[in-house]
Amino acid sequence: MNFCVKCGANTVYKVPPGDNQQRFVCRLCGHIHYENPKIVCGCLVRSNDQVLLCKRGIEPRKDRWTFPAGFLERHESTLEGAKRETREEACADVELDMLYAQFDLAYISQIYQFYLADLIGSYAPGDETLDVRLFDEKSIPWEQLAFPVIRKSLESYFSDRDRGRFTFRHFEIPNRASWTSI
Amino acid sequence: MNFCVKCGANTVYKVPPGDNQQRFVCRLCGHIHYENPKIVCGCLVRSNDQVLLCKRGIEPRKDRWTFPAGFLERHESTLEGAKRETREEACADVELDMLYAQFDLAYISQIYQFYLADLIGSYAPGDETLDVRLFDEKSIPWEQLAFPVIRKSLESYFSDRDRGRFTFRHFEIPNRASWTSI
Repeated sequence: MNFCVKCGANTVYKVPPGDNQQRFVCRLCGHIHYENPKIVCGCLVRSNDQVLLCKRGIEPRKDRWTFPAGFLERHESTLEGAKRETREEACADVELDMLYAQFDLAYISQIYQFYLADLIGSYAPGDETLDVRLFDEKSIPWEQLAFPVIRKSLESYFSDRDRGRFTFRHFEIPNRASWTSI
Repeated sequence: MNFCVKCGANTVYKVPPGDNQQRFVCRLCGHIHYENPKIVCGCLVRSNDQVLLCKRGIEPRKDRWTFPAGFLERHESTLEGAKRETREEACADVELDMLYAQFDLAYISQIYQFYLADLIGSYAPGDETLDVRLFDEKSIPWEQLAFPVIRKSLESYFSDRDRGRFTFRHFEIPNRASWTSI
């Protein structure tokens, strides 16, 4: 962030008066540029005893399998965002059940929220998706999943399904190494 | 957002190629400026059968009562953010219990997360706080609360306390008028 969004002058990275963190501050007009974590929302879509996965058509993790999910947009709730991403990436409508999993990934300043959702009707690959399929537990491509949040969510899901009760799961992941211990 | 953060040239508000939403795009270098909802995190702090509230020392809603809460910072989990805000605004350490309430406020592009937390030791007003007090249910200043999210969280809390079980509460608030119906 080299330039001020308000006046176009150069910024300096410093602690503003009365603050305790470094921010990009405009040298000319003093505007403070706050940067905040982003929310990623998506759906763990069920259909009968299968779950829907999308094969990514773009980097990162192209050709790997993931949930339909993406960055929450302005003026959107996480419920709306999760449904929109599912429409965009899997051309699928869903009915949301519950907020099922949250992952606080501090090391990349992202908060993930996945909803349990039920498939309504058909599905097909969206623009950034190579393939969409329903998998039963035995056929999940565990070695070809795109991200650890997907693996952990699926493990939680099948575990909860087997015990007959779904509860909200919350995971705090301070760094990449933490994934090996959860 | 008039100027590009990368090169300082003028921006234009338009739908970038391959996108479906308007963004600020640099006329010169093409950099796309994404704007995303912000997370506000904080604590509903308990001590015996009382809850802790802070009297705001800054606008908006100066002189009104609220939970210790604020914007999540980069490289911070919501749990860390909730504890930090409680230290900053109420000079209090807490032990987090559970993620208790989420409010999706699409109309202001903010997602609130409040944790149930237990007070450890002392408390005092922070720099942006005029007063900090513990209230029992009967003494809550209902007419002097800062925000609807505080009222709704407290109502939920006392209701759950009375029935002896706390469950995660999730509220989707599409616009200001929606507050009258929940």
